[in-house]
Amino acid sequence: VFLPEALQSLVIELQKLPGVGEKTALRFAFNLQQRGTEALMALVKALMDVAERVRPCSRCGFFAEGELCRFCSSPERDRTILSVVETPADVLAIERAMDFKGLYHVLGGVISALRRIGPENLRVSELVNRVKNEGIKEVIIITSASAEGETTALYIKKALEGLDVKVTRPATGIPMGSSIEFLDALTLSRALRARIEL
Amino acid sequence: VFLPEALQSLVIELQKLPGVGEKTALRFAFNLQQRGTEALMALVKALMDVAERVRPCSRCGFFAEGELCRFCSSPERDRTILSVVETPADVLAIERAMDFKGLYHVLGGVISALRRIGPENLRVSELVNRVKNEGIKEVIIITSASAEGETTALYIKKALEGLDVKVTRPATGIPMGSSIEFLDALTLSRALRARIEL
Repeated sequence: VFLPEALQSLVIELQKLPGVGEKTALRFAFNLQQRGTEALMALVKALMDVAERVRPCSRCGFFAEGELCRFCSSPERDRTILSVVETPADVLAIERAMDFKGLYHVLGGVISALRRIGPENLRVSELVNRVKNEGIKEVIIITSASAEGETTALYIKKALEGLDVKVTRPATGIPMGSSIEFLDALTLSRALRARIEL
Repeated sequence: VFLPEALQSLVIELQKLPGVGEKTALRFAFNLQQRGTEALMALVKALMDVAERVRPCSRCGFFAEGELCRFCSSPERDRTILSVVETPADVLAIERAMDFKGLYHVLGGVISALRRIGPENLRVSELVNRVKNEGIKEVIIITSASAEGETTALYIKKALEGLDVKVTRPATGIPMGSSIEFLDALTLSRALRARIEL
């Protein structure tokens, strides 16, 4: 109530960022104000550029500046293998984690009765069309290892039935570096059932 | 390297916020992009309003939209008592914590040999002028309980010598809710020396 209105409005906008409460928003706002007009305008410019130029890739749904994203427009990616993920952030996680050289397909979420998201709200029919037309040989469904992620994976597997494509999913099991004592029961029981010979 | 340039620039700008690393900046950027143009432009407007309208109060250095901040322009504050603080954020902390009804004076930092900040870089002479001209009876120096904060407090006490004003500083001691076991030695020894009779 003691802040100037403009600063108060900035705090309210910053609180809309994920995981940002009032205290953090105040710290951000003070920091921006104290760094001066130039710093504020640099952020303004970056935001406006994103608003004007960043769109979903018309093929895979990842971020793009033109028609296609960097993956879809790269001649170096393997066009026969496709990772299906929930969000653009998942694409970055996969790129960081491993040497995957195929293409992506971003669903835009998972099927969720609770949040009223059905397959028609996701990019599922686009996926089916890509598999039909792009000569794809394997689809890896990398949705979350949760009930909703599994449901979505099964739905996609069904939607691709009858097409000449291998549909896979990453192994579930004990994550690296974890102690058995603190592992949740579901992960442990699944890992045991999926045990492999040494 | 796989993000569109505009999004990458936004991530770089967001990483300049205090305590924000690459992962958090990515999450913020994705969230902003996915909330759409309207959300982006709401933040743009808030930033531009701050750049255009928020200035330091010409009297106390707190945030102001006009010439004076809400404290200095309020007829309800006690003009005879002044809290001297390092930053505008400290003002908010004091307002939240207690029923202080006086005015403020924001120094803009502390004296620091390391960061080459001397009294001439802070609003110290402005403080001396206020004490000379505004009928102030008590100055509470609420700088940090650190070596630099103490140095700054002592410097200000000296600068106000000879003027008809009481100069005080908050008590240091054991913070509420803390266990003796984990208290740092300096806090504990000071609290013991400053012990009071029950």
